[in-house]
Amino acid sequence: MLIVMKPDATQADIDRVVEVIETLGFRGHAMPGENRTAIGITGNRGAVDPTHFENLPGVADAIRVTKPYKLVSNDLKPERSAIKVGNAFIGDGSIAMIAGPCAVENPDQVFAAAEAVAKSGARFFRGGAFKPRTSPYAFQGLGEEGLKILAEVRERFGLNIVTEAMDERGIDLVDEYGDCIQIGARNMQNFSLLKYAGRAKKPVLLKRGLSATLDEFLLAAEYVMSEGNYNVILCERGIRTFADHARNTLDLSIVPALNRISHLPVIVDPSHGTGHNYMVTPLARAGIAVGADGLIIEIHPCPEKALCDGAQALTFGQYERLYEDVRRFQKIAAAELALTE
Amino acid sequence: MLIVMKPDATQADIDRVVEVIETLGFRGHAMPGENRTAIGITGNRGAVDPTHFENLPGVADAIRVTKPYKLVSNDLKPERSAIKVGNAFIGDGSIAMIAGPCAVENPDQVFAAAEAVAKSGARFFRGGAFKPRTSPYAFQGLGEEGLKILAEVRERFGLNIVTEAMDERGIDLVDEYGDCIQIGARNMQNFSLLKYAGRAKKPVLLKRGLSATLDEFLLAAEYVMSEGNYNVILCERGIRTFADHARNTLDLSIVPALNRISHLPVIVDPSHGTGHNYMVTPLARAGIAVGADGLIIEIHPCPEKALCDGAQALTFGQYERLYEDVRRFQKIAAAELALTE
Amino acid sequence: MLIVMKPDATQADIDRVVEVIETLGFRGHAMPGENRTAIGITGNRGAVDPTHFENLPGVADAIRVTKPYKLVSNDLKPERSAIKVGNAFIGDGSIAMIAGPCAVENPDQVFAAAEAVAKSGARFFRGGAFKPRTSPYAFQGLGEEGLKILAEVRERFGLNIVTEAMDERGIDLVDEYGDCIQIGARNMQNFSLLKYAGRAKKPVLLKRGLSATLDEFLLAAEYVMSEGNYNVILCERGIRTFADHARNTLDLSIVPALNRISHLPVIVDPSHGTGHNYMVTPLARAGIAVGADGLIIEIHPCPEKALCDGAQALTFGQYERLYEDVRRFQKIAAAELALTE
Amino acid sequence: MLIVMKPDATQADIDRVVEVIETLGFRGHAMPGENRTAIGITGNRGAVDPTHFENLPGVADAIRVTKPYKLVSNDLKPERSAIKVGNAFIGDGSIAMIAGPCAVENPDQVFAAAEAVAKSGARFFRGGAFKPRTSPYAFQGLGEEGLKILAEVRERFGLNIVTEAMDERGIDLVDEYGDCIQIGARNMQNFSLLKYAGRAKKPVLLKRGLSATLDEFLLAAEYVMSEGNYNVILCERGIRTFADHARNTLDLSIVPALNRISHLPVIVDPSHGTGHNYMVTPLARAGIAVGADGLIIEIHPCPEKALCDGAQALTFGQYERLYEDVRRFQKIAAAELALTE
Repeated sequence: MLIVMKPDATQADIDRVVEVIETLGFRGHAMPGENRTAIGITGNRGAVDPTHFENLPGVADAIRVTKPYKLVSNDLKPERSAIKVGNAFIGDGSIAMIAGPCAVENPDQVFAAAEAVAKSGARFFRGGAFKPRTSPYAFQGLGEEGLKILAEVRERFGLNIVTEAMDERGIDLVDEYGDCIQIGARNMQNFSLLKYAGRAKKPVLLKRGLSATLDEFLLAAEYVMSEGNYNVILCERGIRTFADHARNTLDLSIVPALNRISHLPVIVDPSHGTGHNYMVTPLARAGIAVGADGLIIEIHPCPEKALCDGAQALTFGQYERLYEDVRRFQKIAAAELALTE
Repeated sequence: MLIVMKPDATQADIDRVVEVIETLGFRGHAMPGENRTAIGITGNRGAVDPTHFENLPGVADAIRVTKPYKLVSNDLKPERSAIKVGNAFIGDGSIAMIAGPCAVENPDQVFAAAEAVAKSGARFFRGGAFKPRTSPYAFQGLGEEGLKILAEVRERFGLNIVTEAMDERGIDLVDEYGDCIQIGARNMQNFSLLKYAGRAKKPVLLKRGLSATLDEFLLAAEYVMSEGNYNVILCERGIRTFADHARNTLDLSIVPALNRISHLPVIVDPSHGTGHNYMVTPLARAGIAVGADGLIIEIHPCPEKALCDGAQALTFGQYERLYEDVRRFQKIAAAELALTE
Repeated sequence: MLIVMKPDATQADIDRVVEVIETLGFRGHAMPGENRTAIGITGNRGAVDPTHFENLPGVADAIRVTKPYKLVSNDLKPERSAIKVGNAFIGDGSIAMIAGPCAVENPDQVFAAAEAVAKSGARFFRGGAFKPRTSPYAFQGLGEEGLKILAEVRERFGLNIVTEAMDERGIDLVDEYGDCIQIGARNMQNFSLLKYAGRAKKPVLLKRGLSATLDEFLLAAEYVMSEGNYNVILCERGIRTFADHARNTLDLSIVPALNRISHLPVIVDPSHGTGHNYMVTPLARAGIAVGADGLIIEIHPCPEKALCDGAQALTFGQYERLYEDVRRFQKIAAAELALTE
Repeated sequence: MLIVMKPDATQADIDRVVEVIETLGFRGHAMPGENRTAIGITGNRGAVDPTHFENLPGVADAIRVTKPYKLVSNDLKPERSAIKVGNAFIGDGSIAMIAGPCAVENPDQVFAAAEAVAKSGARFFRGGAFKPRTSPYAFQGLGEEGLKILAEVRERFGLNIVTEAMDERGIDLVDEYGDCIQIGARNMQNFSLLKYAGRAKKPVLLKRGLSATLDEFLLAAEYVMSEGNYNVILCERGIRTFADHARNTLDLSIVPALNRISHLPVIVDPSHGTGHNYMVTPLARAGIAVGADGLIIEIHPCPEKALCDGAQALTFGQYERLYEDVRRFQKIAAAELALTE
């Protein structure tokens, strides 16, 4: 059930509707738009009787929703969302470039990368302090010590920190030290973690699972949002298929598909999405060409010495050229968009 | 690194080797076999120098291991493992039948199912108190209340309880109320959860992820075992493919593949593996024919009223016939095995 | 459109209906059943007006069919089909065992295999004279010379010959020398070849394509049948997925799914379906347990010297044990079937 | 085996090497490059002794090739191939735009589309006279009548005709009426057809199979080339995966992967690759951004009335905007390429 308020509805009208929803034992989510506010209802198992709302002041319409997702949907919020991460936005029309090493290894490696990222004009820095590794015997990340290094990156270079959390304690720590909580592909349907992230203060960057359909991906975002954290960024990072020339199959068609249904920003990860250095730049271009709001790119001062995923890391020089390239592509894409609107 | 002890090595010899391993900053895992004990070393990032061990009393050999997994491997433990779950075994040569409803809905539904399961001669009861649902708005399970109902099933019917945990609190609760901690397919690479389960007292039933390769599946088990919980049961429950006539594609070839590499018991879940009532019995037969150690089967007193996954639940009558069938199949399979050995 | 005749309809009634169908520019396919004949109409692009038929003598009903397949469907022919191949049947309730080498290499190899097959009691012999190889530089088969060797196998050992054709000339030759035309997985949607096979005299064994859905598989059979050759045997031989422990993923759930919709016999190929010698016997057992009508098994006098697919070929001894095994399994399956009917 | 000639080798030297190859019973394929000619040897089953060639006049080197493909490889021919189709090139650095309806329905529909394509500045026209349809009861194409309409398009609009052949007769007809023989995805491993196309005069546009790996795709091209037709264009058109938001998953990462190994041009089909009108333009942009040599795009004067695949056809207006877009993208891509070289 979706309550659409009139353009001239007051805050008191909105509060009243939410109050009625809560009296019924459900939860109301007011989503202000440019022209009007919509209020989603969650917590109901079956249909809600629209007559509860239709005659309340300020209510324009009460719509039954049949799609399995509500809060992610642009039925609820037709304007696209720009998500504030630290002091910059993802989804505001510019390319959100998130770059940095796969894993935080030591201060020297991180600061060298951060200097290159800051110099390029990017606003976001990535780096993992908690690493989800297939083998328990592989390097698992520096943990809190790594987060402290990342916090120093923010101080010294003015970059906003995007970093992964794998459990509740990790979310608490990233909420404290970082600017954006990354939920990895392998945790995309870790529903307890999604709910916990939904109660965190910082925005969530949610990576698509290796075998997640579009509906499952959006419903994972819905899990976070249904707990009250509406700041979710979606990330396509490749799916698992039979194809063996790349580590994963980057599924760029999901970008227009998500944009058709959801107001959330969508970024593309061509580093994990391909697993090969030589594929990262072409697929980054393609990601911007297809309409993504940003990119997440792995770089390393010395890729062949990386403790994790070195085969896909770009050198600083490769990264700078990539960023210049995609900015040029995006300028045309934006000009074209302006023409068609 | 794997330390193979001589057949006549004493417990003191074994303790001494483990002590040396720990002095080096690693962890030693003594795995007693029929004729000799092997000791796995974990926690090392690179190669360990075998000369630390070769001259210790009772040591037969120190072998470098190149496979990514150690503790799951039958290089370490050639005899197949029989895992004790409550007062019965999984992997002891008989069919381990784990039956019950998808979700714990209420005491009546659960006790009716438990009565049918106990009557059939099965020793294990399944039922979810915490449900991983694709949508946050679907029924999420009764939680601790549900676990209490399951604990009552053990008291009244003498069945051993297998039930899913989705987070650390859930593992603590299942450790308290249940007999076996199920880790679901969507959490197969929730590495924090796997490590936590590795410190629990109860055995772990680990379901294969929807897009997990054999190596990833075994390494997930290795995560649990590397923390000291060696009681892991593997479960094939279908993978995600393009095929659309079943909910998942049950990959029975993984049963002989796992048995060739690992000593852990393997069971098959034809309920989730197919998603259709009419497929459950044929695929259950096939699972036993291919060499699985057991089955996990969803039943419901009234499938069409189930709160979750009703389409795949068997009626009690269907379940009883299925169990009779597979026992007959297993008798031949066992006779054949005896002939070929 | 499906015309169902009354139980007491005469041959003249049936001929009359077919005549009317042809007058309308379509094609009629009379399929006699145990109690009554049904007549399928093909060649129509849109709906056919049922009033053309409803008042003709002997007509019980004229049913609009919405499924994309007609002639394969058990709506048209509720009794399961037993297909005569040479002097034996596939689909008559016994296990149809088709065994032999992957490729016809030379008379010695073939006759040695044929002797083992005949001795085991099997009625069908396989062996490829035309080999679909991924590389143009791999052994492509002996061609007509190979077919002559196979024809000699029939003479000397009384076995019925199942062998692949890859093009129209191949179909003509197999129609001449063999007993059953195999269409390989890579040609499952070679629609020109399917139509040509539909005009051949010999029955067709149609292998499922590597990425074929159930509907596509049945419609490929429909292509053959729509040309008048109603003798089609379906064969599951593994699909392409991400899983890498076997060469393909044998999808046994398609056996009950096909049996629910179609009257055509279904056999299973665990040799190509797994690609590993050690998996063939367990998956063969599972194939029979799941309800398949037969098996197609690769054997070789000396697997390590095979010109093609040696890794999956069984020795003669392994093959004999496999056949004994599955006969025991099938005896129970048949007994169970009798009980449930 | 690959014979690399010296830069100053004469035609007589080359002929001599080919003669020796043929004397040995193999086949020689001379591939002239910018600086030197390389000669591939095919037809050998095992290794060829390099001493046959090393001392012949003009020979620089005789290299053993371990990759399964030879003629497609840029080891043999380092310069990228530009393939002449009618009076224009595919792979010459400009965007090869191939546009037209899915199926040839009637002259009016075709000429309307051809007028739009010619007006846009494209040089190639597509349209199917033989349609590979999943169901035998779907529209199968107009056959030779359709090819005559396409030939008239060439006369009236100066466009080069790309059209599918499904069997040998079809190849003969396309060789007569068309300019480029398309082999569809479902026939990518129809090896008899590939060989026959290898003996045709016209170039071949080979579509990737729904479940083809990169190696299988290149080896299919190798089948065509090994018969002497070196004019092959590769086409990515989407693979089959679990994802259900698009008809296929367009795998753009194969473009840089193919370009790294092979000298053949690669084009992208975003129409079949997505199956949805609204996805075609974004994925076309992405295809050019990732480095493809061209696009194949379905258009229709009236998509909602198309006899086949109307859901993915663009209107003429959508097509014109798409073409303008991708030309702008390509200009930057070319400028970037110039910078990085």
